[in-house]
Amino acid sequence: MRSILAALLLVAASAWAQTLPSWNEGKAKTAIVGFVQTVTDRKSRDFVAPRDRIAVFDNDGTLWAEQPLYFQFLFMLDQLKAAAPKHPEWTDNAAFTALVARDREALAKLGQKPILELLAAANSGMTVGEYDASIRAWLAKERHPKFKRPYTDLVYKPMQELLAYLRANGFRTFIVSGGSAEFMRPWAEKAYGIAPEQVIGSQQEVKFEMKDGKPVLTREPKFAFIDDGPGKPVGIYRHIGERPIAAFGNSDGDLQMLQITMAGEGRRLALIVHHDDAEREFAYDRQSPVGRLDKALDEARAQNWIVVSMKSDWKKVFAFQNQERPSR
Amino acid sequence: MRSILAALLLVAASAWAQTLPSWNEGKAKTAIVGFVQTVTDRKSRDFVAPRDRIAVFDNDGTLWAEQPLYFQFLFMLDQLKAAAPKHPEWTDNAAFTALVARDREALAKLGQKPILELLAAANSGMTVGEYDASIRAWLAKERHPKFKRPYTDLVYKPMQELLAYLRANGFRTFIVSGGSAEFMRPWAEKAYGIAPEQVIGSQQEVKFEMKDGKPVLTREPKFAFIDDGPGKPVGIYRHIGERPIAAFGNSDGDLQMLQITMAGEGRRLALIVHHDDAEREFAYDRQSPVGRLDKALDEARAQNWIVVSMKSDWKKVFAFQNQERPSR
Repeated sequence: MRSILAALLLVAASAWAQTLPSWNEGKAKTAIVGFVQTVTDRKSRDFVAPRDRIAVFDNDGTLWAEQPLYFQFLFMLDQLKAAAPKHPEWTDNAAFTALVARDREALAKLGQKPILELLAAANSGMTVGEYDASIRAWLAKERHPKFKRPYTDLVYKPMQELLAYLRANGFRTFIVSGGSAEFMRPWAEKAYGIAPEQVIGSQQEVKFEMKDGKPVLTREPKFAFIDDGPGKPVGIYRHIGERPIAAFGNSDGDLQMLQITMAGEGRRLALIVHHDDAEREFAYDRQSPVGRLDKALDEARAQNWIVVSMKSDWKKVFAFQNQERPSR
Repeated sequence: MRSILAALLLVAASAWAQTLPSWNEGKAKTAIVGFVQTVTDRKSRDFVAPRDRIAVFDNDGTLWAEQPLYFQFLFMLDQLKAAAPKHPEWTDNAAFTALVARDREALAKLGQKPILELLAAANSGMTVGEYDASIRAWLAKERHPKFKRPYTDLVYKPMQELLAYLRANGFRTFIVSGGSAEFMRPWAEKAYGIAPEQVIGSQQEVKFEMKDGKPVLTREPKFAFIDDGPGKPVGIYRHIGERPIAAFGNSDGDLQMLQITMAGEGRRLALIVHHDDAEREFAYDRQSPVGRLDKALDEARAQNWIVVSMKSDWKKVFAFQNQERPSR
């Protein structure tokens, strides 16, 4: 009898080690596993029916890297340069000059509006199928300046495990990103196991039309919806129509998504990935123009949300890095 | 051996009878079952992988009734009347007068814009939670003028079976409606087995704000997106991000959704429900201001899409009707 018990304990211990294997033991992993065990336990008063197990994830900086600049921004910039010869009028455009020179100071002075307008113009005029082909070609060809690898290699292994772990426990997982869905859909299924219809993002206008007798959707030079900051709860409401019970982000652009998630009844989970690992990835927070984490960090501390230290909570950051970091 | 074969044939015949039991044998049922068998047959060159088995359904007139007026329109009209005492300025508003009097001629003269603007105004100002409560209360209380039953009883039994049959064959089913998602989500799961996140509809603007220290979404007096006609392929692209392989509609507002579905490669299915059953439901098509079926009927005939006759293809229209109509 005693040996059966010992064997069972061994099995349980090994199951625990198998759960989120790229996560070091510590507060973050314990909180995640504790949350999942509670909401899936029929005997718990915090039990949540499978239909309501909805988890939302920011993408840039939460599921994959975002430095030195959001990868989609780099893609749109390349589209801008490619379109420039057909737009001589852009040479007089301050946003164009600042963008091409990547002049951060000038860009900051201009503000978001003229920059988005110009990028929207450069990323329009083609059918959605043609645009999809450009995205796929760019992702296949381009390499990250620091890691010298395809951008799609820069997904976080611990977060891939977390997504799979939640789904194994009956959760439905959604991306809710400031980036646009069409930039994520071509690779999100392979990288994260998230189907195109579970990717929510910013939207550029598209228009239905008949072209050579065939119905097509053409991209228009205008944003229809910005899925960032206060836009994220709007995107969630429109697309999912239910309040999530768990939300994962890394920057101030995720604050309202975390707030609306935590404002519901019953047990909930809010988690912030803190980029404090200059060696294996990047270290940045309150001062960074990309992925700034300031207000949301204060709120996380005030509300006792989980703040994940990439440096100490993650054994691995990327699948391609062999070196593992043990618990401190 | 022969008796085993006979037994197998009997089983096969009874399985066939069990498939879509409220559908009479005929061209429509044969076409639907043939399509599903082909795209799910691994040996067929028209085999479609489960991930790509996406089917889209219009709601009003395709999954439930829409006469004498779209049910959501009736609800919004009641919201307008309820809000009127707080808006003395509406007494001078031509759209208000025409709407309250249900003056079809005046409404037609005014056109869609001022009517939608007024309805949007009357259906705004509250949180999405408060609005959801009004919808549920209205649906629980109101009765259809012809059938004297809750509106949610007016879902078509054959279409409920079709949805379940497609899902049993690995399809994901979506609603793509000119109505708004929040009006369908409270009951679509029970009526159709379609989860809130698989309901796509027109969108009124909503705004994130903090109210008494709590994050809420408030309805704004403006439409953000009209998911009708050429809007339907846009809604599908934004929300699903993949081209469906089967589309089901009943009116000209579904034409572009059917076109974009049929424009893809491989075997596809387009189906139109034709309301030709004045006795059990309603009979209308080319002349009806609600659910007009004119151009889409021409296109269906030219392209050889399936046109379902409610009168002869459906044994039953509603679950509550006991009388069954046999094949002609």
